[in-house]
Amino acid sequence: MKQPLLQIALDHLDIPSALKTTRTLASEVDVLEVGTILCCAEGAHAVEIIRSLYPDHIVVADIKGADAGSVLAEMMFSRGADWMTLICCAPYETMEAAYRTASSYGGEIQIELYGEWTFAQARQWLNIGITQAIYHRGRDAQAAGKGWDEQDLEKITRLSDMGFKVSVTGGLSPEDLHQFKEIPVQSFIAGRTLYNAHNPAEAAEEFRKAIHRNWS
Amino acid sequence: MKQPLLQIALDHLDIPSALKTTRTLASEVDVLEVGTILCCAEGAHAVEIIRSLYPDHIVVADIKGADAGSVLAEMMFSRGADWMTLICCAPYETMEAAYRTASSYGGEIQIELYGEWTFAQARQWLNIGITQAIYHRGRDAQAAGKGWDEQDLEKITRLSDMGFKVSVTGGLSPEDLHQFKEIPVQSFIAGRTLYNAHNPAEAAEEFRKAIHRNWS
Repeated sequence: MKQPLLQIALDHLDIPSALKTTRTLASEVDVLEVGTILCCAEGAHAVEIIRSLYPDHIVVADIKGADAGSVLAEMMFSRGADWMTLICCAPYETMEAAYRTASSYGGEIQIELYGEWTFAQARQWLNIGITQAIYHRGRDAQAAGKGWDEQDLEKITRLSDMGFKVSVTGGLSPEDLHQFKEIPVQSFIAGRTLYNAHNPAEAAEEFRKAIHRNWS
Repeated sequence: MKQPLLQIALDHLDIPSALKTTRTLASEVDVLEVGTILCCAEGAHAVEIIRSLYPDHIVVADIKGADAGSVLAEMMFSRGADWMTLICCAPYETMEAAYRTASSYGGEIQIELYGEWTFAQARQWLNIGITQAIYHRGRDAQAAGKGWDEQDLEKITRLSDMGFKVSVTGGLSPEDLHQFKEIPVQSFIAGRTLYNAHNPAEAAEEFRKAIHRNWS
């Protein structure tokens, strides 16, 4: 099984803070995600800056788009994003439009699974051509104490069996990863767990070791 | 019945273009919306600039938030937004967090109705304290030729009867407004229809006349 990638979500409130993190951690991760918070704070500029500084990383624009798929995809992929997120309740027309634009750049669309969604909808996303999904424990759901459970793992497995490359996120720690070892996870996404750690580089190293240990 | 407000969605690709529009149209509208496209392009700065220039307008940050409700609300309300949008599939925890922060600023949260949602969910939004919803024909759905129909009007009426102040948007023209005349619509939201018009001020005037005609 292919080893999952390690993805850092840059959910900083401004670009300079994000760059302090990337200076320390970029070499430890495969994927640099310009998080929704950073996108909202600084705009598409943030994607362009991360792309310029890190030409060899996969760069994600985590905008969770719900409409205007073509305009938003053009904005993000033209600035160097490799992947861009849409929210799962976006209309199919938005997904189609974003997918077309992404494809014209050789980029990919990822569907963010928030709230209520169905496997029938997921089938539609595949029909459109979208092959990536992100399975979440939301930031606020985490704060409310919701953990990973059997239902999460079943849903992730089913999405993977359908043909999705599934990324997983939401308050993950290295100790959580073994729960996913039967699944070909695309990326494990961590944010504050990495850059708010006492020693961020060491925290990232722990994730990489856990990935290696479970998917070698 | 209270007259609906006229809201302009600033879906420009950069701040200077948006300001060309507001210079002409701000005096014709009640609500200035920093649209998702402009938020993604320029970040929270755009909200701050619009707030500074137009202290007497209602300013909306249309970020369609799906997570990190408190952080995003703090970001937008501290910069002067009066209203901020969340996407309907956001987790309830996100809605609660955003609502609390919004309330601490005297601001309001609006739920953007995209894709599939239920009235049972809407009841939960009311329970959280959220009283605004935005009913859409999505930009991409419009492009695919979907019109306003009886189902749309029934849903808007039902939301209104539940206690929501409902705003309506999606390729509206002044000729459409009479269809909503039995409903206490909060705002009619128009974007490109206004600022891409041959004569934008005249286009806004037509909307205001239609509002006055149907809700006098």
